Amino acid sequence: MALGEFDLIAKFFTRPVRRAVLGVGDDCALLQPTPGQHLAVSSDMLVEGRHFLSTVAPDRLGHKALAVNLSDLAACGAAPLAFTLALALPRVDEAFLAGFAGGLFALADAHGVELVGGDTTAGPLNICITVFGEVPAGQALRRDGARPGDALWVSHPVDGGIGDARLALEAFRGSLALEGADFQKVRPAMELPQPRVALGQALRGIASSAIDLSDGLVGDLGHVLKRSGVGARLQVDALPISAVLARQPLAWQRECTLAGGDDYELLFSAPAVAAEAVRAAARQCGVGVSCIGEIEALPGLRLVDAQGQPLASAPRGFDHFSG
Amino acid sequence: MALGEFDLIAKFFTRPVRRAVLGVGDDCALLQPTPGQHLAVSSDMLVEGRHFLSTVAPDRLGHKALAVNLSDLAACGAAPLAFTLALALPRVDEAFLAGFAGGLFALADAHGVELVGGDTTAGPLNICITVFGEVPAGQALRRDGARPGDALWVSHPVDGGIGDARLALEAFRGSLALEGADFQKVRPAMELPQPRVALGQALRGIASSAIDLSDGLVGDLGHVLKRSGVGARLQVDALPISAVLARQPLAWQRECTLAGGDDYELLFSAPAVAAEAVRAAARQCGVGVSCIGEIEALPGLRLVDAQGQPLASAPRGFDHFSG
Repeated sequence: MALGEFDLIAKFFTRPVRRAVLGVGDDCALLQPTPGQHLAVSSDMLVEGRHFLSTVAPDRLGHKALAVNLSDLAACGAAPLAFTLALALPRVDEAFLAGFAGGLFALADAHGVELVGGDTTAGPLNICITVFGEVPAGQALRRDGARPGDALWVSHPVDGGIGDARLALEAFRGSLALEGADFQKVRPAMELPQPRVALGQALRGIASSAIDLSDGLVGDLGHVLKRSGVGARLQVDALPISAVLARQPLAWQRECTLAGGDDYELLFSAPAVAAEAVRAAARQCGVGVSCIGEIEALPGLRLVDAQGQPLASAPRGFDHFSG
Repeated sequence: MALGEFDLIAKFFTRPVRRAVLGVGDDCALLQPTPGQHLAVSSDMLVEGRHFLSTVAPDRLGHKALAVNLSDLAACGAAPLAFTLALALPRVDEAFLAGFAGGLFALADAHGVELVGGDTTAGPLNICITVFGEVPAGQALRRDGARPGDALWVSHPVDGGIGDARLALEAFRGSLALEGADFQKVRPAMELPQPRVALGQALRGIASSAIDLSDGLVGDLGHVLKRSGVGARLQVDALPISAVLARQPLAWQRECTLAGGDDYELLFSAPAVAAEAVRAAARQCGVGVSCIGEIEALPGLRLVDAQGQPLASAPRGFDHFSG
């Protein structure tokens, strides 16, 4: 890129910082950590074809790139502070940049998080965001705290469920047919995930472990079980699903909820006595929560139906994740 | 990539953390900032063909990816703490990963900085590192502190100069011919830059402004002058150069030193009375420093020869940067 093009890019991404000591334009940004707080840090890299489709609107791409990072802060109960953005662009396209910056900053403003630095280069489209948050020392939600007897919960839209992002992706790919109106209902789940930042913070002191659903419920639950040294019984019929997903064949319902990916909901455990506290935290944040199983001492994951009977057949893809 | 491939990648990049509260493997890493210190943050994204050649040895690529980020910390006088690594790989190549991790961690260990998190995905080769450091509140070196009368300095190897990285690149491109022995002498400047981390910290309280040389001396100096609201007189014949570069045509010497790029040396200003303190700081760090000009109130950059006369012709590329 020529120098003028870098100036153009800078135009879209340089805004005055409010809380940082020093923002975009020096060698480093300077942040002033709050005494007694730990700094939570996470990086996610998004690549076309793997994390987004070439057809996505630029503002939705800007939203999603930040959303998946905020979701990591949510999963550890941190309050968002700031982020850096590194961007490789095949060409300088003003309409793309304007849209991307618009979606990115709308979500940033909604969560009070500011862009403090970054990098831009010519190259195959690649978006790498590193996000910073704060959490009181010792209060971070972690993957290793699930204990036998804890209830297993998942968050979801108040009037929806999990798996819609995958359903939209499969409809887009043509793996299954969705009516136009139904596709429009589930498409935002794929393109405009809502990170559960408020819920993550509200669950501090209540949840014993948490992770955000990015790779699919069974796979992500596997990380928690492994790091906590426990197992779980998962009531597949208790998984919350949207009205659109409920109209799909059972095999697709199972696939989308259990191995869906891209949900960016919180999967967390909490002591059984904390059930009302969990529901109150969710109500306060305007988010739905469903109890979907129980942590057990016996290692491994057991999928059961509403009668508590083992599922007859594992869903497609399940064998990849359950080990 | 299949899951097994991600496990393979994790093998190379998961090491126990020493200072972080929580490292690789949870949704976020947790860092414990030191009270009274500001957190310095910088992100750099490296793309093949722009920041490294496809022929570079993997261990040198790992070194350079971290070095360019540490150089940003050096330029603000911060002590390195931790970094995240996001990596897009076209394929999983164990030899490449082993080499890359080897070079990366060797430099990380040399600077006491630890990998605390990151991301890996399939995609065109892309390396995005975000680095964190600490600097006492109010003591960070910034780009906006240069004052008229300050001396202008540049760091360099004790027995070398600036511009060798560009010289090696041009020799590689075939733009000029270098003898094999000479190419081998300047190649490390391109592939194994040494970030001036100790010097940056030693210059706290001495330097009035600093920036690291990544895009070329004239361009990078322009950033300092613009943000400080000052101008400068640059003594072109005072620029330190290696014996190999001194044997090249004068036009190439000028091009490589003034618009070279990829030097990763520190360009800084300091009050004239601090000259001995600057030299003492450099000696203590085993680094060379040369006084190359003076900050002036009159905006703009004036290139002069040893007699203080304006340079007859601006070097190639100069017009791009001087505005």
